[in-house]
Amino acid sequence: MRELNVALIGYNFMGKAHSYAIGNAAFFFPQEVKPVKKVIAGRNEPGLKRAAEQFGWQEYTTDWREAVGRSDIDIVCIATPTSSHKEIAVAAAKAGKHVLCEKPLGMNAGEARQMWEAAHQAGVIHMIGHNYRRVPAIALAKKLIDDGKLGDIYHFRGVYLQDWLSDPAAPMSWRLDKRIAGAGAHGDLNAHLIDLARYLVGDMERVVGMEKTFVTRRTKALGDKPPHGEENEEADRLEDVTVDDAAAFLARFKNGALGTFEASRMAGGRKNHERIEINGSKGSLAFHFERMNELEFWSREDDPKTQGYRTILATEEVHPYMQAWWPPGHPLGYQNTFVNQFADLIRAILAGEQVQPNFYDGWMCNLVLDAVSRSVQSLTWEHAEPAAAELHETAGR
Amino acid sequence: MRELNVALIGYNFMGKAHSYAIGNAAFFFPQEVKPVKKVIAGRNEPGLKRAAEQFGWQEYTTDWREAVGRSDIDIVCIATPTSSHKEIAVAAAKAGKHVLCEKPLGMNAGEARQMWEAAHQAGVIHMIGHNYRRVPAIALAKKLIDDGKLGDIYHFRGVYLQDWLSDPAAPMSWRLDKRIAGAGAHGDLNAHLIDLARYLVGDMERVVGMEKTFVTRRTKALGDKPPHGEENEEADRLEDVTVDDAAAFLARFKNGALGTFEASRMAGGRKNHERIEINGSKGSLAFHFERMNELEFWSREDDPKTQGYRTILATEEVHPYMQAWWPPGHPLGYQNTFVNQFADLIRAILAGEQVQPNFYDGWMCNLVLDAVSRSVQSLTWEHAEPAAAELHETAGR
Amino acid sequence: MRELNVALIGYNFMGKAHSYAIGNAAFFFPQEVKPVKKVIAGRNEPGLKRAAEQFGWQEYTTDWREAVGRSDIDIVCIATPTSSHKEIAVAAAKAGKHVLCEKPLGMNAGEARQMWEAAHQAGVIHMIGHNYRRVPAIALAKKLIDDGKLGDIYHFRGVYLQDWLSDPAAPMSWRLDKRIAGAGAHGDLNAHLIDLARYLVGDMERVVGMEKTFVTRRTKALGDKPPHGEENEEADRLEDVTVDDAAAFLARFKNGALGTFEASRMAGGRKNHERIEINGSKGSLAFHFERMNELEFWSREDDPKTQGYRTILATEEVHPYMQAWWPPGHPLGYQNTFVNQFADLIRAILAGEQVQPNFYDGWMCNLVLDAVSRSVQSLTWEHAEPAAAELHETAGR
Amino acid sequence: MRELNVALIGYNFMGKAHSYAIGNAAFFFPQEVKPVKKVIAGRNEPGLKRAAEQFGWQEYTTDWREAVGRSDIDIVCIATPTSSHKEIAVAAAKAGKHVLCEKPLGMNAGEARQMWEAAHQAGVIHMIGHNYRRVPAIALAKKLIDDGKLGDIYHFRGVYLQDWLSDPAAPMSWRLDKRIAGAGAHGDLNAHLIDLARYLVGDMERVVGMEKTFVTRRTKALGDKPPHGEENEEADRLEDVTVDDAAAFLARFKNGALGTFEASRMAGGRKNHERIEINGSKGSLAFHFERMNELEFWSREDDPKTQGYRTILATEEVHPYMQAWWPPGHPLGYQNTFVNQFADLIRAILAGEQVQPNFYDGWMCNLVLDAVSRSVQSLTWEHAEPAAAELHETAGR
Repeated sequence: MRELNVALIGYNFMGKAHSYAIGNAAFFFPQEVKPVKKVIAGRNEPGLKRAAEQFGWQEYTTDWREAVGRSDIDIVCIATPTSSHKEIAVAAAKAGKHVLCEKPLGMNAGEARQMWEAAHQAGVIHMIGHNYRRVPAIALAKKLIDDGKLGDIYHFRGVYLQDWLSDPAAPMSWRLDKRIAGAGAHGDLNAHLIDLARYLVGDMERVVGMEKTFVTRRTKALGDKPPHGEENEEADRLEDVTVDDAAAFLARFKNGALGTFEASRMAGGRKNHERIEINGSKGSLAFHFERMNELEFWSREDDPKTQGYRTILATEEVHPYMQAWWPPGHPLGYQNTFVNQFADLIRAILAGEQVQPNFYDGWMCNLVLDAVSRSVQSLTWEHAEPAAAELHETAGR
Repeated sequence: MRELNVALIGYNFMGKAHSYAIGNAAFFFPQEVKPVKKVIAGRNEPGLKRAAEQFGWQEYTTDWREAVGRSDIDIVCIATPTSSHKEIAVAAAKAGKHVLCEKPLGMNAGEARQMWEAAHQAGVIHMIGHNYRRVPAIALAKKLIDDGKLGDIYHFRGVYLQDWLSDPAAPMSWRLDKRIAGAGAHGDLNAHLIDLARYLVGDMERVVGMEKTFVTRRTKALGDKPPHGEENEEADRLEDVTVDDAAAFLARFKNGALGTFEASRMAGGRKNHERIEINGSKGSLAFHFERMNELEFWSREDDPKTQGYRTILATEEVHPYMQAWWPPGHPLGYQNTFVNQFADLIRAILAGEQVQPNFYDGWMCNLVLDAVSRSVQSLTWEHAEPAAAELHETAGR
Repeated sequence: MRELNVALIGYNFMGKAHSYAIGNAAFFFPQEVKPVKKVIAGRNEPGLKRAAEQFGWQEYTTDWREAVGRSDIDIVCIATPTSSHKEIAVAAAKAGKHVLCEKPLGMNAGEARQMWEAAHQAGVIHMIGHNYRRVPAIALAKKLIDDGKLGDIYHFRGVYLQDWLSDPAAPMSWRLDKRIAGAGAHGDLNAHLIDLARYLVGDMERVVGMEKTFVTRRTKALGDKPPHGEENEEADRLEDVTVDDAAAFLARFKNGALGTFEASRMAGGRKNHERIEINGSKGSLAFHFERMNELEFWSREDDPKTQGYRTILATEEVHPYMQAWWPPGHPLGYQNTFVNQFADLIRAILAGEQVQPNFYDGWMCNLVLDAVSRSVQSLTWEHAEPAAAELHETAGR
Repeated sequence: MRELNVALIGYNFMGKAHSYAIGNAAFFFPQEVKPVKKVIAGRNEPGLKRAAEQFGWQEYTTDWREAVGRSDIDIVCIATPTSSHKEIAVAAAKAGKHVLCEKPLGMNAGEARQMWEAAHQAGVIHMIGHNYRRVPAIALAKKLIDDGKLGDIYHFRGVYLQDWLSDPAAPMSWRLDKRIAGAGAHGDLNAHLIDLARYLVGDMERVVGMEKTFVTRRTKALGDKPPHGEENEEADRLEDVTVDDAAAFLARFKNGALGTFEASRMAGGRKNHERIEINGSKGSLAFHFERMNELEFWSREDDPKTQGYRTILATEEVHPYMQAWWPPGHPLGYQNTFVNQFADLIRAILAGEQVQPNFYDGWMCNLVLDAVSRSVQSLTWEHAEPAAAELHETAGR
């Protein structure tokens, strides 16, 4: 069977998730080609070596450029902190590799636009790792909306809540350093909500928001190093937190819907609580990731006596992706979304057609993130769409 | 036993709720005095007469001024549309009656301030009908916060969702006429959320919001008459909706917390879904009114292995108000909150001490409502507090 | 308006619930007659006097026979411990009074049968206080089953869980004395489940069960006196628990369905957790009383992609009893079921037609309770239906 | 790294699950050895070949004896229908292989005992595939019980509900043929509940139960073939269902607890609803597999004001197995339990110590299953433990 060789840049949390997906995609979704874990790249050799062994990579290298430049590599998968996305992605695209990049795509919309242009011009397949689109319950939500089951959309309501910074004594991390992470809860978590909102409801016109860093100085954590970034050996002292702990914004969608968004790492008791609710003229949906196998659906078309939100356990053969997995009632977990995602990428590569969400979606997402951040400064609503001139210019390339 | 005579203005939904509370307060909360349903006032005599009989009022009158002016009346309870609150409340206060008024207090902060000043100057006990403070689970939430179980508050998150306008074919109502109702979802529903936020978290500094009327014209409903307002006999034609269907806003609290608020009558499948979540440095709370007997509580002080939101069924003897009701595990309903509220009013009258929330709280609530509405026009953040000069002037009276 | 005078025997928990219902029935369900709280009876004069005042009874008496025998009494309501039900009910029936009696009807099926015969022969309206039939969500369940939405019934699954004896240090109570209470969790809680099973599924043929007293001796509680029974002034010593703490049984219904039942006062964290689930060939239902406003309904007739249990908030105008109460989404509480129940009794009296559940249903329920208890001794299945001869004999009377 | 070669017998649902686990165990749980997917065996060559390729087996064979007998095989994994378990397991044990066998272990306790004796005498590591013990939430439940957080156990309440036979029109399957499957819902689903009950509460003394086949004849399904059994090419006609659709039983545990068990494939809307509840003198637990990442825990040791069932999201580092997986709040799925299980088996092999549950547990489980079935015939309670003589005899071997 033909093989597709993958180079993975990054070996921590996201690196592990992608390694898993690459190793299991063919098991659940047999296709004409089979992905191969060829080479993994990172900076810290001991950790990288351990990861390469545990995750089953054939080779490893501390020079990502070498990995990306190899002629036997078909796909480059980018699982590093945001600050290095652009450089790697542009290099990969120019080398003619298909690229899967983690989110948010760029440090800002400018970077994201460059990445999209590079991939577009290179003619490669490009994908952004908004894995939540690959939750079967979310894919089902999309189908219900596309089938008109919600009618006209009135409301999108999204919160993405975590609590790992809720304790003021929680230590510093590279994720709280703006130079490496780019942003805090806003870039990390609102990025996911924005992508789901765009997927399910559409583009936003204008936004206004607020951000806050509740705990502005935290103790340095010994041994906390970014997976692919600057290291700092000093310890035992307070460091400045330079990203937001929480961010919320209001949005007006192009189609007239109203949106509310909130991301926080300070919401005690919520671990990975990505919750969305959508209300339309004919139906409503609700979902949260901690119960990722369930989709709540209300329909005005039901008999009034028995109307109510129904809890759809999206684990049946009739649900998206589920024929590949297990019999009815067997819940999927977080990792399954990465397998679904990688299988979709391979399908796109085989078909020679762009997959969604791709770098264009990543750019659009960065535009919204940036508009919110501007509004925090300007104290007024900001446009979340690319200027007409900008789109025109881009299209011309 | 000494009796306290009550005059009730309004006989529809809220009139029924207050009639019920007045009739049952002494049954569950025996005190030194007993409230008596003396006289009920309204405009439409046939409906008023029926209500008087069904709800057990000794007398009725179509002239609210007569009811308010009677020397044998101790308490005036105002359950009319917002547009008539000020006139009745000011008259009642001037006549030396204790006053319980439905929310929102005034059509705007100016009216509310006048009402507060009139009641304050008259030296009567005044209360605003934010009955949700009298849900035992909410009173328990207040106690946990006051006891420091949440630590510093980071987030208040409130939505109040209904769906009776979600169908574009739903008919017109006096509640959608700005002249009578004053506002739509914003004034009706956000008022409740704002009161709970002030009760549990504190005052807000600044807000920015958006409002929308999704369905701008609706069919006139035959027979739809305001409980205490202008009537219009014409039918079968489209009428303009002049209030908002939905409104959302962001808030910054004085104590540094961030708040998100959303009210909608367009949220399919939600009937009376008033949901609040509060996150602090030590604990979190969640509540929604459709499961009004339950309070969700998470505490960082629990053993990490077994931390999780616990569902407190607030129906035990140790919970606020519950000794008056039933043995453990017997849920309360909506109407119980009105009984708790009226019993608290009587207790305040007997003690000669102001109860909370009172007209001052109603004024503060109107100030936030107004600030949000201004921000919708100005597209920027607006102050939600009274100006220093205004407070000074008021205090001087 | 014509009045119906009520005599209530018993003034504790159930006495309070019935007082409430009698006082509020006409408020919510206006009918041609109005019930009047005429006289309340009990043994302990000080407590009785306090109850009479608080609950608004015109008179009180320590001699229930006098109350029952008064010519101006139309309805006798029996809210005493089980051991006195038969004597009072038979006397009331013979005096030509309509009777509402708490559950379980008799100490055993023999008593219950006598009560049914007495009421039947007297031609009065008789009702047993299985108030859970008056929960709107349960009445809706009945309607869905009658409408064929569940198809053939396969399963009834009921648990009624409380925890007030779960702590071995919880004190003794008259409810744990077999002479007064008749039975423990079995008679108190399984009685409710059996009634719901008969209401929703039908009669049972055979049962086999187990019972257990986990804590066989408990400390005497000072001041614990039965509302209407023997008193014992000694204190501070261990007393024998003579009823079961928990009881469970299996059942085969006449229509072929299988049933499982469990009642316990030892289920930590469950306060009044009466949960039933019914599965049929076309649909399923689930309900539990701690969320008494919700009915879960699954239908095979829904689109397979969106099948799931829907949570019906049974608070809409289209739901049973709800037109009498509040607008959509306003939850009812425990006490509302007693008002619904009393209003149904009055309706039956006005119509001159028996209401359900009545003493016949109470007898049938006692038959099942007894059969389970026999099976605990015999270690084998026991018939839960009356013998043919017995039914024949009864019918002949 | 040293490798452990695995032979897998069976290639359908369970074969897929075990293939997955074998392939991923080292990825998540790196140990000194690495399992290798050496050879897979089955009867139907085309299907087997496809499975071998998709699931990544090096070789395949239609002769399971050959696979089991190979000298390079270390572990035999049995994923066939119950009817073939004994023959394969005994052969594997005699060949000195470690054995992991699916549940129920034998067609009856006699077979199971032989299997246990064979494995015991061979001195191999033996394990039964009750994977639900490897759900982190269940392992946490075990820990809480062992730590005394529940005190004395009063109640075990288990239901395992599915609905794939709920529609009378659902077709016949080899799973409904007693000769191949051994039993229906009872053997398939109650087996899991019994194992969890033994794990968490202890052994049972006596049981009494009922079983029922609601739909006794079903249409033959074309192409339905057992993964490892007899085939029947005839179609389009009704066939007899020879196993139960549902089975329920009562149990008395050795430690005095009461148990209720119910298994059904007729419970509409329940897909894989394995729900257990345990109540003790100090705490309670609840769990259901459709929300497999959550454990409900109630503790009497909490402040009475804030007692309530807490929903523990068992996805934190402090929870069993979770350090191997993902950061907080990332749910696991069904398949993870098989990885945890296989990693535990390898650990046991490396340590040379028996793992739990093993064939002894499988035997005990079959004893309970048999006792329930006998009680269905005898209509009385049956002993669920091995006779003393039998245990003595076995111990002597």
